[in-house]
Amino acid sequence: MSFLLRTSSRLRPLTRFPTIRPITTTTKLSANAATAQVVDQTGTEPPLFPDEPFGPTVRTAIPGPKSKKAIEDLDKVFDTRSLNMMANYQNSFGNYIADLDGNVLLDVYAQIASIPVGYSNPALLASATSPEMASAMINRPALGNFPQHDWADILRTGVLKVAPKGLDQVFTAMAGSDANEVAYKAAFMWKRRQERGGPDVEFNEAEMSSAMSNQAPGSPHMSILSFRSGFHGRLFGSLSTTRSKPIHKLDIPAFDWPQASFPHLKYPVADHELENAKEEARCLAETEDLIKNFHNPVAAVVVEPIQSEGGDNHASPAFFKGLRELTRRHNVLLIVDEVQTGVGATGKFWAHEHWNSADPPDMVTFSKKAQTAGYYYGNMDLRPNKPYRQFNTWMGDPAKTILFRAIINEIERLNLVENTAHTGEYLYSGLERLAQQYPGQIQNLRGQRQGTFIAWDSPRRDDFLKRAKGMGVNVGGSGEKAVRLRPMLIFQKHHADIFLEATEKLISS
Amino acid sequence: MSFLLRTSSRLRPLTRFPTIRPITTTTKLSANAATAQVVDQTGTEPPLFPDEPFGPTVRTAIPGPKSKKAIEDLDKVFDTRSLNMMANYQNSFGNYIADLDGNVLLDVYAQIASIPVGYSNPALLASATSPEMASAMINRPALGNFPQHDWADILRTGVLKVAPKGLDQVFTAMAGSDANEVAYKAAFMWKRRQERGGPDVEFNEAEMSSAMSNQAPGSPHMSILSFRSGFHGRLFGSLSTTRSKPIHKLDIPAFDWPQASFPHLKYPVADHELENAKEEARCLAETEDLIKNFHNPVAAVVVEPIQSEGGDNHASPAFFKGLRELTRRHNVLLIVDEVQTGVGATGKFWAHEHWNSADPPDMVTFSKKAQTAGYYYGNMDLRPNKPYRQFNTWMGDPAKTILFRAIINEIERLNLVENTAHTGEYLYSGLERLAQQYPGQIQNLRGQRQGTFIAWDSPRRDDFLKRAKGMGVNVGGSGEKAVRLRPMLIFQKHHADIFLEATEKLISS
Repeated sequence: MSFLLRTSSRLRPLTRFPTIRPITTTTKLSANAATAQVVDQTGTEPPLFPDEPFGPTVRTAIPGPKSKKAIEDLDKVFDTRSLNMMANYQNSFGNYIADLDGNVLLDVYAQIASIPVGYSNPALLASATSPEMASAMINRPALGNFPQHDWADILRTGVLKVAPKGLDQVFTAMAGSDANEVAYKAAFMWKRRQERGGPDVEFNEAEMSSAMSNQAPGSPHMSILSFRSGFHGRLFGSLSTTRSKPIHKLDIPAFDWPQASFPHLKYPVADHELENAKEEARCLAETEDLIKNFHNPVAAVVVEPIQSEGGDNHASPAFFKGLRELTRRHNVLLIVDEVQTGVGATGKFWAHEHWNSADPPDMVTFSKKAQTAGYYYGNMDLRPNKPYRQFNTWMGDPAKTILFRAIINEIERLNLVENTAHTGEYLYSGLERLAQQYPGQIQNLRGQRQGTFIAWDSPRRDDFLKRAKGMGVNVGGSGEKAVRLRPMLIFQKHHADIFLEATEKLISS
Repeated sequence: MSFLLRTSSRLRPLTRFPTIRPITTTTKLSANAATAQVVDQTGTEPPLFPDEPFGPTVRTAIPGPKSKKAIEDLDKVFDTRSLNMMANYQNSFGNYIADLDGNVLLDVYAQIASIPVGYSNPALLASATSPEMASAMINRPALGNFPQHDWADILRTGVLKVAPKGLDQVFTAMAGSDANEVAYKAAFMWKRRQERGGPDVEFNEAEMSSAMSNQAPGSPHMSILSFRSGFHGRLFGSLSTTRSKPIHKLDIPAFDWPQASFPHLKYPVADHELENAKEEARCLAETEDLIKNFHNPVAAVVVEPIQSEGGDNHASPAFFKGLRELTRRHNVLLIVDEVQTGVGATGKFWAHEHWNSADPPDMVTFSKKAQTAGYYYGNMDLRPNKPYRQFNTWMGDPAKTILFRAIINEIERLNLVENTAHTGEYLYSGLERLAQQYPGQIQNLRGQRQGTFIAWDSPRRDDFLKRAKGMGVNVGGSGEKAVRLRPMLIFQKHHADIFLEATEKLISS
């Protein structure tokens, strides 16, 4: 494990006003690394995050003694049974997460894919300590009633600047689950408006009184169609569309909504084109059948560009274009859930850009790396016909929206989507080589090739994840047996080398 | 309107590091105020918020020309039909909200009851600009997996320090709606665990497979009972318990859950004791009947200590104690929704303290003035029997939880619960006098007497709210015809004088 100790991490306390240093430092990669064969041929690459450690440091078993004590204490007031690692974020920099025992791990899980540009990022720190942020924090508005005067500007220079093609409106929310739910609400209102005969047809007495007792026609028996193994959140509406694992759903009442099969592709996809196309056609036919015949009429279909929590299940652009086409044909909305796939990780800002579809989705939901949440839309018919229908006290959070703007600026300044595409290709190639070398250990390797949103199936997945910590790497899983990589957008080739080296050691021992 | 212009507001740009000045300044109240009869007999009272203006300033009609232009611009990207007033928060201080046209209003609505200790509060500013906050903002953890090392400390010195009696655990969330929904989820898991025969009984195959298709027994047909005119949020589960207005519910699928009548009291309650007791007994009997007989078994009852959005409907401590008693008797949980009533506004930190019940609720939900959200509980059986059942990526937000701690400290430092009790009594007395003088204009005045959580019915409510702005006061409504007062906790007698004076002018003209 000497590579783990070959450099000491340079931990520094968080300073309040760091200067954003020009990127001049270079890192020389260790020539004797086990995976030297995959080292970038150019030899060096300027680090995007000058403050981060040169490599992981493992000082104790994880959790170490200090962490153990802290976890025990936390458990007295907060359920710690899902705890993975107790972190010290003041000592975490860039791609590296620190704990209380002096361990510093390369983090390719990134808070379940929600850290975009590195821990303690100086540009975000500047935004977080700005007077604008301070005011947003301490004067949080009820945005629907009393928006701040610069709200339009914050939206235009931030969240709307990266709006998916064709969608120039946004409704902000708090997290992925409620972002999906407000999108579902917009879909139901849109569908019922159509049935009613347009925006100017008033609600009738029967609708108004039945809605108050949760009965049709006011509370209609309509549905959102989702896909098997999909994940869209864990509140009551979003959980009704989540089909990942029983533990997510057991004992919670759910709406009687339909689920279609999601393509179960064979990997590598290039070697199974005909079979996979047939499988996708089957799933589209099933979806269409449900849209036509399910007893609770479908208002919208929700889908992830890559099923993330459900095990990193991919489908081809043709599948998604087919889905767009059939939802149009049956006058049903298409909601693309980019909560985990969005904001650069697939080598495009939005994963659905990979589809190259001329016809955009009706709504795209986002959260995680955006640090805020919401849904984009373009069709003004998706604004409800009256005020206060899509409303709540906060309706998002200007503070987090300002932070997303800083994230976007950092992504642009450092060309991080391009970096991720570039690094992803390198990382994917390295994993392909390992898969060839250890075919029993790395199965069904999958990813966009450009992008670090990569996964594979492991016969000893939980063991792999656990032992990875001892090798200086924090990595997560998804589905039943997938190892899922969710590095930040500042993940570079020299990080990929560390990861590949650790992976090889783990699967070869 | 000379009182509106009698003092100029001292607007200052937001400074980054204000000193929290000792409270020494005193304000002399105008001797010729129309409501001089309700001026505090001690004459002066030291202001809690030295930086705030001496009184409102109305320079233009509201919205003024600059606001109109900004609203028009915002509408291009954000639905503004529910917009009440576009604010300039950098120019808002203490109880005063500023707009773009130089208008500065006394704010007794406070972002729908969600600003606790005044706009641009220096103590909150110090917290918002601390290194601890900066790290929490830019290194937002997935709390269930990678909590920060000081999370236990943040909870203990903040949110748990003010935990309701008997409830020493907390599950943090993002806003009122999801706080209620996670509480409902905990209730369903608890109830099903009991039916199943305890925490160690494993889920069976039928449960696991049916849950994946949203069917019983895995997704059980159970329910949460709520009350007519109650409001608990607008996501799918919380909206199913919300019974406020059709516009909140129309077109959104809802669970078939029961609603009981909430007492329709006659005011003033002291004059209608027997009638009101009979009405409350009727509602309790209806609740009990639903718990015993509703076709979808009830796991929990959710209730607001004062129905807030629904029109400020009160019930007596006896009613709530009866509810606690009957939920215990039928082995159903009692969830008290303190999203709007909590954090001091009723003259107690939690409104349910007014009940003086020896037996605490099972869960208490909170948000709004806490700036974070979640539910308190005490019974460890409410922790699900396995990890990852009550879980999501962020599970709250350390940044907002740190802010809540600063709010709590500020409430303690300035004795703001006591201040609110004290000011509330003064304000309520003033309104009682006005109600006697103008009985047609102020009907059904109601409040806790100690506390500023006060409302009355107005025959010209919407007109009253609109014209109030011209008198320098921002005030909101609830239900069909209630004027609801939701001042901040730094609302003092001299603010009450301004409000009473404006109210008298409005209702007498």
